[in-house]
Amino acid sequence: MNPNQSITAALLVIGDEILSGRTKDVNIGATADFCTDLGIDLKEVRVISDETDEIVEALNAVRQRYTYVFTTGGIGPTHDDITADAVAKAFGVALPINDEARAMLETRWKTTGTQINEARLRMARIPEGADLIVNAVSAAPGFRIGNVHVMAGVPLIMRSMLEALAPTLQTGKKVMSETIRAAVGEGTIGGPLGALQALYPDVKMGSYPQMGTSRVMTELVLRSSNEALLREAAAKVREMVAQEHAKAGITPPD
Amino acid sequence: MNPNQSITAALLVIGDEILSGRTKDVNIGATADFCTDLGIDLKEVRVISDETDEIVEALNAVRQRYTYVFTTGGIGPTHDDITADAVAKAFGVALPINDEARAMLETRWKTTGTQINEARLRMARIPEGADLIVNAVSAAPGFRIGNVHVMAGVPLIMRSMLEALAPTLQTGKKVMSETIRAAVGEGTIGGPLGALQALYPDVKMGSYPQMGTSRVMTELVLRSSNEALLREAAAKVREMVAQEHAKAGITPPD
Repeated sequence: MNPNQSITAALLVIGDEILSGRTKDVNIGATADFCTDLGIDLKEVRVISDETDEIVEALNAVRQRYTYVFTTGGIGPTHDDITADAVAKAFGVALPINDEARAMLETRWKTTGTQINEARLRMARIPEGADLIVNAVSAAPGFRIGNVHVMAGVPLIMRSMLEALAPTLQTGKKVMSETIRAAVGEGTIGGPLGALQALYPDVKMGSYPQMGTSRVMTELVLRSSNEALLREAAAKVREMVAQEHAKAGITPPD
Repeated sequence: MNPNQSITAALLVIGDEILSGRTKDVNIGATADFCTDLGIDLKEVRVISDETDEIVEALNAVRQRYTYVFTTGGIGPTHDDITADAVAKAFGVALPINDEARAMLETRWKTTGTQINEARLRMARIPEGADLIVNAVSAAPGFRIGNVHVMAGVPLIMRSMLEALAPTLQTGKKVMSETIRAAVGEGTIGGPLGALQALYPDVKMGSYPQMGTSRVMTELVLRSSNEALLREAAAKVREMVAQEHAKAGITPPD
């Protein structure tokens, strides 16, 4: 870990089922949490359809731009699983049956009594030059080629693949955060918060109104990789919020 | 409605809180459902950070490409709410206080006894030439400029804005779907399903393994805007699934 390096990432969620609304994605949130925990700055997510050209275009746009690219979806055994084909095309490499991947699958299939067939063998097709990402759940591996990490779309398998590749990733400056709850609205706090943000440009201050609560609530989230600055800015924000509470004659929230 | 027209859309989800994992997005799924219900083909979603240049770049990339663009997030009263600024910049127009928006806010603020201040008035800044999108929940409006529809990020407000703008949207060919459940795995069904997909190119066939079920289950989803073709293809897929069940000596699922 280089404590001064900024490590960035993009996620491509590949699948018509997300875009049609049939499946509600949970991999974006899981990947975002994963990146934040490792000090990797997730800069962008794209959800795209199961179309080779769309995948190639999105992949080429983001892999030049960020330290890492993660993809989820489209590596199963059916005709609509075309992620490996698209990745091979984007990198200009062949997509042969990979012996190691085939062996992983055959070992699993032996214990489950599963027949080998052409559809299942699709899952052993890995772009030339790629390393495998172990799949602890259902054996069919993901793979890494260049800075692109190709994972399954099934959330349980995707998360197990993220865990498997975590030790192989460079981690960046760890970003710390402080959350401050205010019992006044964003409109009340917006002015003074903006002034504090201007004073602390290296501490990113976000403001999030809470809906469906019994009283007005705004959550202020401060983030920075500079811990001393973060603590200092948070103290100033707390002071400002206390003043706003006092002005409004409000009991502070817990 | 022109029954032969293909209407496409992209969604931009704007917000650091989604990329950090702090907030788990639900607007993608809601927008996907909304589009599918109206026969609008949601082609792409991007989640991007609260940075003006990122928003402008993404907006300009997608607004040329699709019939409609929807955005969620970044239209509140605090300094980190910069979506209106970025949209005005992308369209090269000014961002004045809009009288109609100001009146909507003032009417609401009168009933709630809320003080007008600079932060709150940020929410009345609307790009020149834009129409307002009514916000039934908290009064601060969204807006439409060109083919871009700018909405709040708070899910409840976002959904109310989607409902408000639904009657203003052109709707496309309605896509129908049939779901067929198979009690065999994707690897078993992949070959014959791929053959049927090749026979019916205008019926999109997706295959989704079910995890965490007590028996192996694959859900096959067929989609088409041609109802007769969809029914015909679905009958063929059902027949194929019944054969696979029979081969494996399996009782069909409900």
